[in-house]
Formats: sequence, structure tokens, C-alpha cells
Amino acid sequence: MSAGETVRAIRIREPGGPEVLEMVEVHLPPPAPGELRVRVTTSGVNRADLLQRGGAYPAPLGFPEDIPGLEYAGLVEAVGPGCSVRKSGDRVMGVVAGGAYAEAINVRERETIRAPEGVSLEQAGGIPEVFVTAWDALFRQARLTAGESVLIHAVGSGVGTAAVQLALAVGARPVGTSRSPEKVERARELGLVLGVVGPEGWTHSVQELTDGHGADVILDLVGAAYLEGNLEAMARGCRWIVVGVPGGALGQINLRRLMSQRATLRGTVLRSRSPEEKVILARAFQDHVVPLFERGEVRPVVDTILPADKAAVAHRRLEANDSFGKLLLRW
Amino acid sequence: MSAGETVRAIRIREPGGPEVLEMVEVHLPPPAPGELRVRVTTSGVNRADLLQRGGAYPAPLGFPEDIPGLEYAGLVEAVGPGCSVRKSGDRVMGVVAGGAYAEAINVRERETIRAPEGVSLEQAGGIPEVFVTAWDALFRQARLTAGESVLIHAVGSGVGTAAVQLALAVGARPVGTSRSPEKVERARELGLVLGVVGPEGWTHSVQELTDGHGADVILDLVGAAYLEGNLEAMARGCRWIVVGVPGGALGQINLRRLMSQRATLRGTVLRSRSPEEKVILARAFQDHVVPLFERGEVRPVVDTILPADKAAVAHRRLEANDSFGKLLLRW
Repeated sequence: MSAGETVRAIRIREPGGPEVLEMVEVHLPPPAPGELRVRVTTSGVNRADLLQRGGAYPAPLGFPEDIPGLEYAGLVEAVGPGCSVRKSGDRVMGVVAGGAYAEAINVRERETIRAPEGVSLEQAGGIPEVFVTAWDALFRQARLTAGESVLIHAVGSGVGTAAVQLALAVGARPVGTSRSPEKVERARELGLVLGVVGPEGWTHSVQELTDGHGADVILDLVGAAYLEGNLEAMARGCRWIVVGVPGGALGQINLRRLMSQRATLRGTVLRSRSPEEKVILARAFQDHVVPLFERGEVRPVVDTILPADKAAVAHRRLEANDSFGKLLLRW
Repeated sequence: MSAGETVRAIRIREPGGPEVLEMVEVHLPPPAPGELRVRVTTSGVNRADLLQRGGAYPAPLGFPEDIPGLEYAGLVEAVGPGCSVRKSGDRVMGVVAGGAYAEAINVRERETIRAPEGVSLEQAGGIPEVFVTAWDALFRQARLTAGESVLIHAVGSGVGTAAVQLALAVGARPVGTSRSPEKVERARELGLVLGVVGPEGWTHSVQELTDGHGADVILDLVGAAYLEGNLEAMARGCRWIVVGVPGGALGQINLRRLMSQRATLRGTVLRSRSPEEKVILARAFQDHVVPLFERGEVRPVVDTILPADKAAVAHRRLEANDSFGKLLLRW
């Protein structure tokens, strides 16, 4: 139990395309004080993994540079000194700053989240990153509340599909955009109130649907390409949270429009937060969101589960924007 | 007491330069329910008045279109039905959405603020707009706290000089920019920790002074001209509040920088808020800030007091950026 072991993992051989991902064996030390070893059932694939693979998004200090992976679900297999909450055999999931493309990983106990009862561990691997991101952005940062309208860009993405469900769970009205009519249609099945096929014309539709009121909250998973439209779509007092910028980082902003709307534009990222913040986030998520899964109010939206050695296929599918919901790697 | 009267006021004859300001007589009705009539000692001159004079910043509904003026200090002269807090002879000051360039005005009782003891009513006319703006932005919106650094642009302006003092009063470290070396020097006398003569090079100075940490809060009274510099000067978790944009409204923003710094950019304006918000703001200001004046921790910084019929002179001086602190009109 206290000896290290050799485990399979997906490594980035060198910065490059999906072909640089390779299955390797790595040494996993015994869990350090405060750590658990988790036998991973599935690892989620995220857009940030693509950036890291290309060399554009290095892992923070203390995390492996060449093994991507920001989330996992699995079974606790070994417990390090000083752990007090989890025990061997517990079903857990969580967000990490790297290294989750592996059949087993050591994680900080207090950053783990109880996997919801009634959701398979395989499916649970699609929960942590996107639901924590959407929940933190919508509620802890934007303070979305019942009756408000929330504009969700890239509504067919993992974070988008999570956000639609979370918004509905608190009685808010989710409206959203996607470049694919099929994804808009599938998001409607999740409860999306209004779906617009971008990138043109959606501002008018948002204003129309909200009787000219505009969006109280914007969950921005696109960036610069929709910046001008977001400025027009904002309601008075809008909270606009930027979570990702695949549509570009640089755009022109009208500061007077921010003033007249008394609006807030905020950037957020999970990965670089301090361990203390991550513990607080994990525990609050377990208290507030895991029960929503257990009551069936929200569910992971999984596009495809692939064997872990097909990581390159998963990366290609995500890169092509072909997926609806999460791509997962099974160990 | 309940009859209307004729009072002198400064009117905007037509949109234009300072020469369109003229002294006129206007009819002032008796105070409506919940209103006081205040005999004005001084009216403050604000940059928004210049915009309104030029036709660019119309008064909200319910306020005179052609009489500018966003703040006053004076004596309560008459009390409308249903008032319960103030009585005739009370020393009050306040922010209004327009019409304060007049020797007497009717104001909502609950938006009035007790004028601080130990400060003359003449000087008190320089308090409301700039201290409420700075205090609301720094504390109610940006949550500035002890030990943090706050970057204040246009540090010699009315809002800038108020912000320097308020920051010091809570143990924060004010750093600031001005295009005038003399204004930087005078702001140092108020307690400014670091003053930089803009528009170039200040980002480096801010980083140096804060040991590379950057600004925890930015009070932005400039806008687009300093947008790029502000992005560089931000500390992790920076709260950047845009209060005015004399340096332009349109600028390029880097959303990825907002994300990596987990920073917030927020626009604010006092004038268009609801009466309910204004009441809450006035009462909180009276509770939290008026005592700072009474203990001598902050004071109004007055550039010049002019007779009210010299309003055009005051406008020219403000337009030329020659003033340090407030310009006031005496009735």
C-alpha cells in the first residue's frame, strides 16, 4: 500500500498535433500526507488539454508537464497519512491541475468530491471540470438567480450543456448560441429556452426573447468573436464571465457601454487557483451540486467514451467541434 | 412656506460652449411629499456638467433638462409633507441627477446627507459627488481593503483627490497618475504613495512600487488611453472600476489577460440609479464617511470657489484640466 507502482498514462511526447499523444508507463509514488490514490475509471477531455498538447498552456508547478488531464472519476485505492474523510473503495471525482490522463493518480483528499449516487463512475468522469466551471461562474461569481436570463455561448460544449441544466435548476432562463443547428436542437432538449445559430443575428434574438431586457448574465465560452454582440445583449447590471476564448482573446470594448449598463466583465480560470481555494470550491460543490445529480435535476452530458489509448481520436473530435457534451477516456 | 417661489439658476441656453451658460430666474414649486427645499450655499461643478452643456449627457426623466448641477450643500429651508428626518435649519448636502446650479432646490429628503460638523457649508458643496463616487467605487464595488494597492488615474481630479484620502483612511496604498507634475506633487501632500506623470511609463512604476504584485484595485477616470497599461498593471484578482472615460471609450482588451489574472472590469455611474439605490447609498455614506470628515481623516479638496454667475469661468477651467480638486459655485 505504501510502495509506489507503475501505471499507464497518456503522455505528450513533444508539442504538436494529436499524434504526439502516446501511452506510456510512469512511476506513481505512494500517496503523500493528505493525498489519496485513485484508480481512475474515466478521465475527461477538455479544450485546455488541446492547448497544453500544443505547448500553449503549461501545467502549474507541482503537476506533471507532459501528462495532461484536468479531471477524473474513480475509486479510492489507497489513503495517505493524515487523511480523514475518504476511505478505500469510496467513489470520488475531482478537478486537478494536470496529470489525470492516467489509470491511477494521487490527489489531495480535500479536493476530491463524492461521486453522486445513481450516476455511474464512468459517466461521473464527465462531471467535475465542466460542472464546477459552470457552477462557479454562474453562481459564485455571477450570482445568477431565479427569473434572470443567462446567455450561454457554445451551448453544445461540455460547459455549455452543464450551464443550461444548472440555470434551469435554479429557475433562471437559459438562452444560447452555437454554430451548429443540431447542437442548438439538442440543447433545447436539455431545456434551453432560446437557441440561436451564431455567429450573426443572435443579439437581436436575445433582446427579443427577453422583451428588450437583455441578458442578466453572460457565460462566455467564445471570446473576441462575440464581444461586440455581448455588449449589445447586456441587461443593466449584467455580469459577464469569460471562461474561454477559442474565438480570440483580443477585441474592442466600449467602456462607456459598460458604464451605462453598470456591467461587470470578469475573467476566470480554475487551474491556477490556490489549493485553499480549490478545497473550498470542491466542498461547496459537493454540498450544493452533487445533490442535484442525485435528485436527477442535472446529469452529465456525454458525447463519447473512448478507450484511453484512443486519446488522439478524442482530441481530433473536440478540435473539430463535432462533439455535443463531454468526451471521456476509459481506463 | 407652501407657496412656490422664484429662484436664480444657471441655465444652458442651447447646446454649446461655456458661453451658453446664463443666469435666469425659474419657478420652484413647493416641496412635494417626501421632499425638502434646500437653500444652496455652494453647487459643485463636475465633468458631467460639461457633457450635458454640450448636449451629450441628457438629464434623466424628472430632472430639468436645461439646468445642470449634480451636487449641493446648504440649509434646509422648508419641509414637504411626510418628511421625518430633517428639519428647517439642518445642514445638508447631496447628489442629485440634475438641477443643482440654483440658489434653492427641492430634493428627496432620504437622499440628503448630513453635512459634516467642522466643515463649512461652502466647502461641503465639494464633497457629495466625488466622495460618494470614489467611496462607492472603491469600497462598495471594488471591496478595497487594508494593505492593498489602488491605482488612481487622474489623481488630481475631484474624484482622484477624494480616492487618495479614502484609500489612506482604510490603510490601503494609493498610487496614481496625472499628466501634470504639479498635480502629482500636490497629491503626494495628500498622502499619495507613488505618483507618476502619464501617459507613458507608469505601468512599470506601479509594478516596481508593488514589488511586481501590481494593482489590486484600479479606479479608472481616464478610459481607453490607459486601457493597455491597466491590463499590465493588474494584480491577480484585480478589481478595475471605470468611472469616467475622458480619454476615450473604445479600446482593445485582452480577454485572456482578464482570465489569467482572474480580474474584474466594471463600469459604474451614479446618475441613472434608481431612487431606492440612491437612498441606500446616501444613508450608508452618512454612516460611514461623514464621520471620517468629522475626525479630520479626510477633507474636501477645493480648487476655487467662484460666484455662481461665473459658471462659464469654472467650466473653462475644468475643461482645460487646470484645476486640482473641486470647482464650486457660491450662491
